[in-house]
Amino acid sequence: MKDPAQAEGEEETLDPRDWDRVRELGHRMLDDMVEYLRTVRDRPVWKPIPEEIASSFHEELPRGATDLGDVYRDFSRRILPYPTGNIHPRFWGWVMGNGTVTGMFAEMLAAGMNLNQGGGAQSGGLVEAQVIDWCKAMVAFPSGGSGILVSGGSMANLVGLTVARNAHAGFDVRAEGVAASPAPLRVYASAEVHSSVQKAVELLGLGKNALRLIPVSAGFTIDLEALRRTIREDRLKGCRPLCVVGCAGTVNTGACDPLDELADLCKAEGIWFHVDGAFGALAALAPGLRGLVKGMERADSLAFDLHKWMYLPYEVGCTLVRDPAAHRGAFALTPDYLEHTTRGIGGSDLWFSDYGIQLSRGFRALKVWMSIKEQGIDKFARMIRQNAGQAKYLEQLVRARPELELLAPVPLNIVCFRYRGGVLGKKPLDELNKELLLRLHESGVAAPSYTLIADSYALRVCITNHRTRREDLELFVAEVIRLGARLEKETARAGAAAAAGGRA
Amino acid sequence: MKDPAQAEGEEETLDPRDWDRVRELGHRMLDDMVEYLRTVRDRPVWKPIPEEIASSFHEELPRGATDLGDVYRDFSRRILPYPTGNIHPRFWGWVMGNGTVTGMFAEMLAAGMNLNQGGGAQSGGLVEAQVIDWCKAMVAFPSGGSGILVSGGSMANLVGLTVARNAHAGFDVRAEGVAASPAPLRVYASAEVHSSVQKAVELLGLGKNALRLIPVSAGFTIDLEALRRTIREDRLKGCRPLCVVGCAGTVNTGACDPLDELADLCKAEGIWFHVDGAFGALAALAPGLRGLVKGMERADSLAFDLHKWMYLPYEVGCTLVRDPAAHRGAFALTPDYLEHTTRGIGGSDLWFSDYGIQLSRGFRALKVWMSIKEQGIDKFARMIRQNAGQAKYLEQLVRARPELELLAPVPLNIVCFRYRGGVLGKKPLDELNKELLLRLHESGVAAPSYTLIADSYALRVCITNHRTRREDLELFVAEVIRLGARLEKETARAGAAAAAGGRA
Repeated sequence: MKDPAQAEGEEETLDPRDWDRVRELGHRMLDDMVEYLRTVRDRPVWKPIPEEIASSFHEELPRGATDLGDVYRDFSRRILPYPTGNIHPRFWGWVMGNGTVTGMFAEMLAAGMNLNQGGGAQSGGLVEAQVIDWCKAMVAFPSGGSGILVSGGSMANLVGLTVARNAHAGFDVRAEGVAASPAPLRVYASAEVHSSVQKAVELLGLGKNALRLIPVSAGFTIDLEALRRTIREDRLKGCRPLCVVGCAGTVNTGACDPLDELADLCKAEGIWFHVDGAFGALAALAPGLRGLVKGMERADSLAFDLHKWMYLPYEVGCTLVRDPAAHRGAFALTPDYLEHTTRGIGGSDLWFSDYGIQLSRGFRALKVWMSIKEQGIDKFARMIRQNAGQAKYLEQLVRARPELELLAPVPLNIVCFRYRGGVLGKKPLDELNKELLLRLHESGVAAPSYTLIADSYALRVCITNHRTRREDLELFVAEVIRLGARLEKETARAGAAAAAGGRA
Repeated sequence: MKDPAQAEGEEETLDPRDWDRVRELGHRMLDDMVEYLRTVRDRPVWKPIPEEIASSFHEELPRGATDLGDVYRDFSRRILPYPTGNIHPRFWGWVMGNGTVTGMFAEMLAAGMNLNQGGGAQSGGLVEAQVIDWCKAMVAFPSGGSGILVSGGSMANLVGLTVARNAHAGFDVRAEGVAASPAPLRVYASAEVHSSVQKAVELLGLGKNALRLIPVSAGFTIDLEALRRTIREDRLKGCRPLCVVGCAGTVNTGACDPLDELADLCKAEGIWFHVDGAFGALAALAPGLRGLVKGMERADSLAFDLHKWMYLPYEVGCTLVRDPAAHRGAFALTPDYLEHTTRGIGGSDLWFSDYGIQLSRGFRALKVWMSIKEQGIDKFARMIRQNAGQAKYLEQLVRARPELELLAPVPLNIVCFRYRGGVLGKKPLDELNKELLLRLHESGVAAPSYTLIADSYALRVCITNHRTRREDLELFVAEVIRLGARLEKETARAGAAAAAGGRA
């Protein structure tokens, strides 16, 4: 049905009929969002979504129009109040950044320009190339390397491992596929490696059995001797060691593998050296932390995120590759309709689609460019140092309290610990800490996440948060102790009641 | 070095020191961008980047801070004036959408909330689930299917083909890898299939030799008899036909394969049926076009974009999968640190990271939700019908002018033609049209792209543009004829000069 307001034969558009009104609405949205960020500290970290809201997202596909003001009101009522929580000063769950006001503005500008970063002669390509040069400088990667911005760490690892497979398997994998390999291909990483590496190995058709998980030593870093032994055994079995993945900051504890030694080993063995530096790579910015990731710059491919420890809004990660020809050779594919020209819109040497999986690509480079320009990289270095210092501070707070138990070393920005109080036994301790975590989330006071450390349930605090202050950590520790003590009492009462019931 | 304005011991943040000033700057950006979009018709479609601008993007990594106002001025001078051009009413190159004002606002809101759509108990998951339900309704896909929003068509095809491989290869590909296949796996698609399908087949380790490109019939749709024969031959050779990829709108001409017949064939043969409907899938919205993609709803997996023919800003595409268990089974992977809980932030059934490659994911669902709400799907249906009608109109304009030659049928929204004037011979015609395209771009009047049709260089007009009017196409045709005639004269003069030179 034709829009009744439309004159016969007149063509329609999705542009506003009343630009001024829509502009005013936009200003209201911007005001609201800036205020939302300015006041984030005053709200709970997170709150559960009420059932009537959760169940309301089952609407029929809307056929007719709704006034944008009403759509925005709906957003403000049903969506805005229930975020993940990672914008909050006391969110330390998983590995998430906060985003920034400038990042938010940049996303608006990028969406307005809506240019296609697949390639071509447009300014976005220049911005992305500039940002990649900066990324190389940030992590001390060779300036002759190539790179691409991707959606995040999972994709960054996939891109790096694709280059490893296609450039280093010793035959034409792109044409013949993995099955043509004269020897089974093997990838090596510590048992603490991120799950996205397994996902990538599976996607690439190598199969997760090809991923050899090497035990870790006390500091949760890869056991080099075990790695050497496994490689030796695999060679004897007729396998071809393709790639070693080093961790610059594991997700569980922030451990950094001995990257220099891994680089030496890979060089000696002729193995591709990939580093997953999702957040840890950026430790290279801070002089005091740089030593932890030394050797990372020797990687053949390096994956890291900018929406984690660079605090930018989702999505943006980066893959750097030492050998640009290997990088391009792993992906480039130019059909007739994409033939690159020397002039006009297709007239550019910058075709990012030749260096990754996406053809059409958004302008995620803009928020990186604007943020680095505005803050300067020294500021980011200070923020990263500040977060690492806060983790050390939390470590001290935990060590100082007998009710708490540190479960892993704190090399970087992650603290794993638990409430132990007077509770004895693994299972009750695990149960108590599990419940403690959920009550922390539900209280809205703080949001750590969880993991298993040597099979013990751990509260896990990962500080990639530019809003966190030391006082937030003090408040958090006090709350953990308060909740822990209460849970201990509840457990004791329940135990007594059960015992009494048993006697009855 | 510590920020000098920072008191000793005080902690820093990336939040603004002066919120009011930054808010004012944001309002200025928003005003400028809305004005930029309102006046887009008054500017050239595209213009080349001046050398002094292009060469300026080689700055050292900035160490110190720059006032955000200055950064924005720099953006306005060096970046904003040089977009790809696809926001313009007369941009018809490749397959690109325009973006919308609402899409731009939504991206700002999404970046402000900065939630992580990997999963968990937050409103974004509900929004994405709602949007996927709407996507299923839009393309008449079974409501029991699963889906995920991805960065675009390349990723959407990769996700669909990953499910095909992992669910349908007949062995545990995730564990054992492609090399464990008892029989070589084969994927089938027409020779007109998009390059992203080859990219996906390569990424998945099948090798491009596993992709059997089937010849097309006169309308550039897959030759069903040739497909049947190839499958038969492959089976005789001991190969396992894994997947047929049907095209709902080829990139060259907009041709739609006979999807119902392909569905029948796949059912009979026990082959996975994937449909690449990057833009064409949305033809299902318009009653008059729906017949072209009939059978698409029978696909096992379906890939399409929302940043093309839904006109939304980059990036957003979608994969739908008929069997949710197969979909989840192809990707799900839950390490300790991602253990899903029943309460707290991890307490949700909606873990999109189990249905795709990304773990951390941005809130691209919001722009889809807001846009469908605001415009209503009937409006999108009318816009798509309008674009298809405009393509038919251009076809008529081309057919009416003896200087122009239509090179392919116009089933949907793509018109391939060339200027022929009085020029004779393949090579001169190709050269003339190549130059004509570049001059069109350089003039800023209109931006078609190019392809080869039966080995002839074609100007290719793909209308996925909500700002295009018929008058734009009239202007374009007039300009093609004017430029073509001029080039013909130049060619003749150059030929005469060369001949004279030859005689001298």
